[in-house]
Amino acid sequence: MLPSRGALRPVDPRRVRITGGFWAQRQAVNGTATIQHCRTWLDRLGWTENFATTGTGTVRRRGREFSDSEVYKHVEAMCWESARPGGTNYDAQLAELTERIAKTQAPDGYLHTAFGRPGQPERYSDLNFGHELYCAGHLIQAGVAAARTGRAPGLLDVARRAADHVCTAFAETDAGVCGHPEIETALVELFRVTGEQRYLDQAARFVQRRGHRSLPEHEFGWRYFQDAVPVRDGEVFHGHAVRALYLAAGATDVAVETGDDALLATIVRQFDRTLARRTYITGGMGSRHLDESFGDDFVLPPDRAYSETCAGVATVMLAHRLLLATGDLRYGDIVDRVLHNVIATAVADDGQAFFYANTLHQRTLTEAVPADREQLRFGGGPRAPWFEVSCCLNNVARLVASLGTYLVAEDDRGVQLHQYMPMTVEAAGQTLTVDTDYPAGGAVVVTAERPCTVTVRVPAWAHDTERTRTSDAPARLELPVKPRWTFPDPRVDAVRGCAAVEVGPVVMCVESVDQEDGVTLDDLQVDTSVAPEATAVKGRVIRPVEHDWPFQSRSDTPQGSDPIVVPLVPYHRWARRGPSTMRIWLPVATA
Amino acid sequence: MLPSRGALRPVDPRRVRITGGFWAQRQAVNGTATIQHCRTWLDRLGWTENFATTGTGTVRRRGREFSDSEVYKHVEAMCWESARPGGTNYDAQLAELTERIAKTQAPDGYLHTAFGRPGQPERYSDLNFGHELYCAGHLIQAGVAAARTGRAPGLLDVARRAADHVCTAFAETDAGVCGHPEIETALVELFRVTGEQRYLDQAARFVQRRGHRSLPEHEFGWRYFQDAVPVRDGEVFHGHAVRALYLAAGATDVAVETGDDALLATIVRQFDRTLARRTYITGGMGSRHLDESFGDDFVLPPDRAYSETCAGVATVMLAHRLLLATGDLRYGDIVDRVLHNVIATAVADDGQAFFYANTLHQRTLTEAVPADREQLRFGGGPRAPWFEVSCCLNNVARLVASLGTYLVAEDDRGVQLHQYMPMTVEAAGQTLTVDTDYPAGGAVVVTAERPCTVTVRVPAWAHDTERTRTSDAPARLELPVKPRWTFPDPRVDAVRGCAAVEVGPVVMCVESVDQEDGVTLDDLQVDTSVAPEATAVKGRVIRPVEHDWPFQSRSDTPQGSDPIVVPLVPYHRWARRGPSTMRIWLPVATA
Repeated sequence: MLPSRGALRPVDPRRVRITGGFWAQRQAVNGTATIQHCRTWLDRLGWTENFATTGTGTVRRRGREFSDSEVYKHVEAMCWESARPGGTNYDAQLAELTERIAKTQAPDGYLHTAFGRPGQPERYSDLNFGHELYCAGHLIQAGVAAARTGRAPGLLDVARRAADHVCTAFAETDAGVCGHPEIETALVELFRVTGEQRYLDQAARFVQRRGHRSLPEHEFGWRYFQDAVPVRDGEVFHGHAVRALYLAAGATDVAVETGDDALLATIVRQFDRTLARRTYITGGMGSRHLDESFGDDFVLPPDRAYSETCAGVATVMLAHRLLLATGDLRYGDIVDRVLHNVIATAVADDGQAFFYANTLHQRTLTEAVPADREQLRFGGGPRAPWFEVSCCLNNVARLVASLGTYLVAEDDRGVQLHQYMPMTVEAAGQTLTVDTDYPAGGAVVVTAERPCTVTVRVPAWAHDTERTRTSDAPARLELPVKPRWTFPDPRVDAVRGCAAVEVGPVVMCVESVDQEDGVTLDDLQVDTSVAPEATAVKGRVIRPVEHDWPFQSRSDTPQGSDPIVVPLVPYHRWARRGPSTMRIWLPVATA
Repeated sequence: MLPSRGALRPVDPRRVRITGGFWAQRQAVNGTATIQHCRTWLDRLGWTENFATTGTGTVRRRGREFSDSEVYKHVEAMCWESARPGGTNYDAQLAELTERIAKTQAPDGYLHTAFGRPGQPERYSDLNFGHELYCAGHLIQAGVAAARTGRAPGLLDVARRAADHVCTAFAETDAGVCGHPEIETALVELFRVTGEQRYLDQAARFVQRRGHRSLPEHEFGWRYFQDAVPVRDGEVFHGHAVRALYLAAGATDVAVETGDDALLATIVRQFDRTLARRTYITGGMGSRHLDESFGDDFVLPPDRAYSETCAGVATVMLAHRLLLATGDLRYGDIVDRVLHNVIATAVADDGQAFFYANTLHQRTLTEAVPADREQLRFGGGPRAPWFEVSCCLNNVARLVASLGTYLVAEDDRGVQLHQYMPMTVEAAGQTLTVDTDYPAGGAVVVTAERPCTVTVRVPAWAHDTERTRTSDAPARLELPVKPRWTFPDPRVDAVRGCAAVEVGPVVMCVESVDQEDGVTLDDLQVDTSVAPEATAVKGRVIRPVEHDWPFQSRSDTPQGSDPIVVPLVPYHRWARRGPSTMRIWLPVATA
């Protein structure tokens, strides 16, 4: 079941128990409230009911063309949750849904509730937007999770039949690709679980086939569908962010399993350039609302940031693959950043409301969303219980339930620790224990039953000359978790003249509910000559001159107030205390 | 035909002859190449053919639900063009299209080629997006133009029958509104032409009925459809920019004709706040691609500017109405700015390619578009010959053909000159002659056959203490047209630390084709301590440090080059010399 090669070996998440701290709490809420919340909505909207409860019956189908995938991601989340140490058991729900799904599968293995049956469009009649292979991919990922966790008996067989159908239907060179990548990584994972070569071959074929503009032309352009440029010829991720990242994850899997070092190198190059030029300070990716896509290099507007939650999930998936394949710890850094600033931000404390997009600057007061109300608009706004396009909820649920996947790895020398939280890990033939209150504090202590070589990741922000420390357990790492000013590349026009505060991997923000009366966030300036504290910085309030036209022949030097204290909170805590405005990037006082 | 009251009286465009300079050239190209180009495409795509050539036949309808309006705007443009002094005569084409349109009209006056006939959706079954009243509005505007110019005999009758149908169908309080405003201003204009009170009453009813969320909910929200807030309760324009501006034009017309000073005051207040906080330096409006809408206050990103060409047309329409109603010369300023920086920019020199959106910052090389190729994507990219949503082309054509409307006005004292170009004007019972090479130069000389009081607008950028000068003709105005630095309000985050150059009403830009080899626009900094010239400023090139992550603990002070000369061109000249990058706002060198 493991990748056949790579610098590091993954550790089965069932061997990782998060024992306390921030993520243990999040896992507990995810495993109960979020998963149950998702099921309630899947039922309410009829997306589970689309899967026939009898073998022959058909029901009036509800939901968009990708709603099947939500059921599959929900199933995947329940597999991981049921299997994780301390998790909630969903075996009964898994059995019920597995039965429904299996009964809906056509005799030839095809499985999608919106196509191919009487009164529905023909199979594969809309490769741009039909999401048929995308849904098949999520079904396969659910089947793989079932196999890896020993849950949901029978689901792997359904997934195999679906995969067999895909391999047959899309064997021909001109058979096309799906508008939304996902099937690629799913097929490689299924190959790893089953050893069946044809799944790997088909995944490689899909990766190879992309980028030749075989999909019909659309106003969003071929870049949106990842069909404008062959994967090997890309320079940087572009188009729809989630599609780009899923495709890159699949290409990485193909490269690892086929020994295609050139393919791996091109993904590394594209991801590295994306990190250097197209990623928000939060780790969020994708700046455009219109087509949910990456912007051009250095176009990272905080106030119209898209930074979709699903892109965060996809970044973790891709970065982990590249970390295992290359051993480069920068990919651990981005996982750390995304977890603490995108995933942590997206989910309400009760696990039942979510950001779809994660803006970095909220100028007008957020609105409250009723708990029983689906949001039609998914591009912005407050955390909401559900969206018409509701991909992010189940995506977060499966990520958090399987979080143990992303924390540690092994190689021939011993154990690598990539993410820091209180946990026990069964690795290197014994149980290791990690004690830390990271990211609140920087001390990480690893103890072992027997002597054992432990390598730890030193984040880039620690400004250490060495990115790793290797020692025998018990090992102690002391990271300089203290507030620091952070400044943008001068080419990021949108935040020129601004600074942000970070504490370890956590990006801080100012939120209006913390400020004194009369302080408007957009009138704040901060004094970067004074070191920041974790809870506040020094600044002042300017009083802009009001003109009837905002462009003037003199540069206004607005009158500044006496110095004030500007309270900060972690970005992931924002919008939890009623309507508020917020900003991460703060103009630096210059006069 | 005139507004029943107002500070100023409009002058019939048939009494204004533009005799030379920039706009005479543009009018000539518009009157021949652009109008013929539009007809070619309307025929090629079948949008004219949608109007039956026989009374009973039906054809397979082609085009989007608003394609009828393109035919009407084309007709309107031909009326103005045929009637303007020196214009091209399109009487034959007008007769042919009038006959087609008349034959397509239903016996009860209803007229839309996409609804209400066998196999089509029912009339008014999709008020959000059906564009039925929108199209009726453009038909009525075409009929009004026909009446005002004495062209297209019979078209006014068609328009009246359509208007009568609308008045009947939408008389009831709960009958709804159109998702796209346009009918409001059209009905008031028809009232002015015909004296028929029911048209004014119905327009007032539509204005009053808006903003109560009677349209079905949609992911873009009621703000998009201008149905979130009653017109009288608005604080600033919001939602879809063209819809907002058309509605405001209609509300202004209603306010003027019904004596509703409170309604007029609220439109003035909303427009003034929009000018102060939601308008680009070019005069462009609407910053969001997703829903073509206004952004929040001071959200004016140059690199994702939308600034739709149609919003420019609508701004001219609205500003002129408010200028006439209030006499406030600031509304002449914005017309000047939009004409020279939005309308002038949108059209290729040959009059056969167009920007739909007018970005203020192009980071990647523009692509060429084949002259025979419709653009599916309308939200960005180069000037193109046609778009799937092709509203802007005919909109510009009708505006430029009727440009004489917006240049001068009268009141009891004499003549007001609001825009400067070489022209003759029949006003105050005689012929006045204007000589100028504005905006290249600032001298404007007005001569008259007999003594006559002439009032001229002094633009705000002239920094004169008086906004008007009144004197007897011959009169001479000398405007300080020289290059000047312009700085943004400190709350416009997207251009903090930047400056732009303006020359009179013309916004300047840097374009890559003018720069020395190796100069990347996004690495430029300018020295605002040196006065700009019309063709260049002093600056330097920075060499940003390349990091693998764009957010660092130290503020980079990139190494700057020796001082260089940075060539400038008028913004409206950009993208006319092959693929290029461009920016208006230039970072100011600080170190």
